[in-house]
Amino acid sequence: MKPYPKEKNLDNHSKRGADLEKEINLSNTYYRDLDIALIYKKPTPVQVVRVDYESRNKAKITEAYYRTPSTTDYNGIYRGKYIDFEVKDTKNKTNFPLQMVHDHQIKHLEKVEQHGGIGFFIIRFSYHGQTFLVDAPTLIQKIKSTNKYAIPYEWFLEHGNLIQEGLYPRLQYLKVVDAIYFKEDS
Amino acid sequence: MKPYPKEKNLDNHSKRGADLEKEINLSNTYYRDLDIALIYKKPTPVQVVRVDYESRNKAKITEAYYRTPSTTDYNGIYRGKYIDFEVKDTKNKTNFPLQMVHDHQIKHLEKVEQHGGIGFFIIRFSYHGQTFLVDAPTLIQKIKSTNKYAIPYEWFLEHGNLIQEGLYPRLQYLKVVDAIYFKEDS
Repeated sequence: MKPYPKEKNLDNHSKRGADLEKEINLSNTYYRDLDIALIYKKPTPVQVVRVDYESRNKAKITEAYYRTPSTTDYNGIYRGKYIDFEVKDTKNKTNFPLQMVHDHQIKHLEKVEQHGGIGFFIIRFSYHGQTFLVDAPTLIQKIKSTNKYAIPYEWFLEHGNLIQEGLYPRLQYLKVVDAIYFKEDS
Repeated sequence: MKPYPKEKNLDNHSKRGADLEKEINLSNTYYRDLDIALIYKKPTPVQVVRVDYESRNKAKITEAYYRTPSTTDYNGIYRGKYIDFEVKDTKNKTNFPLQMVHDHQIKHLEKVEQHGGIGFFIIRFSYHGQTFLVDAPTLIQKIKSTNKYAIPYEWFLEHGNLIQEGLYPRLQYLKVVDAIYFKEDS
């Protein structure tokens, strides 16, 4: 049995896992500022039930509920193409649990491909400190063909594309998009 | 001076003006169900301050505020192209008031064009019972070149494209998109 990594490392990784969304948002801001791509996170849908108008300018929502999104977390445009992706981070060491991917996300990403867009998942294994970009049709095919509740980490080493991390942007995921979806041009 | 239309008509038009967003959402559902296009309204961004967990399953938001969106109302993919648009309805008889268009919407739609996407406005003059699709670069150029606070209704008759209304879909705006942006193919 392998020894566990030092506790310091574990904390570090788990912190990075929780921050995945923030890192992608920062990367998107960088990509937008440099006019490289126009990609945004969609707001979380909220069903507003009651609003108080305390002052003329500031409406205060006093009762609301989270709703299940119909689509994925992120979309936009890059190099003239429609881009659409979902982001997941897991602390699981050996597997990506399939309960993290919802049916409506699979259906939506299938439609993205059907309409000629680029769809993928960004999946972080925070234990390993690795973040993969995985082509949506490839992962969806795997999900549909497995009878397990999870996909092994090793599958991602083989079929995923490791995203380089840096300072600006934090997660250089569009480099991977270039390599996978714009092969002929680069 | 022209006589005012009957009150019944006015009510009818004003009701239709308020329902513009609903009609577009219904059209988008129709377009999605028939696999014609994949276009969604983005959720209104809400800043959540406080959440009560009354039960394990239902989180109740008890304090939240509306935030200004950074982008436009709608985006998606149609015929392989990125689509992005903003929707406005006015009860004004003679003019489209420019205060209805925000700076961030103009900047965003300029970037959409720059990245090779299709950007437009859907503008309803509910008094006239007419809904126009206007190419974003065309309207933005007009906004930047005018020193008035509004653009005359006549300008839209000349530069806008009247959207046909029907039963399914209610607003056949993709027909106009075909005519403007996919001329060579149709």
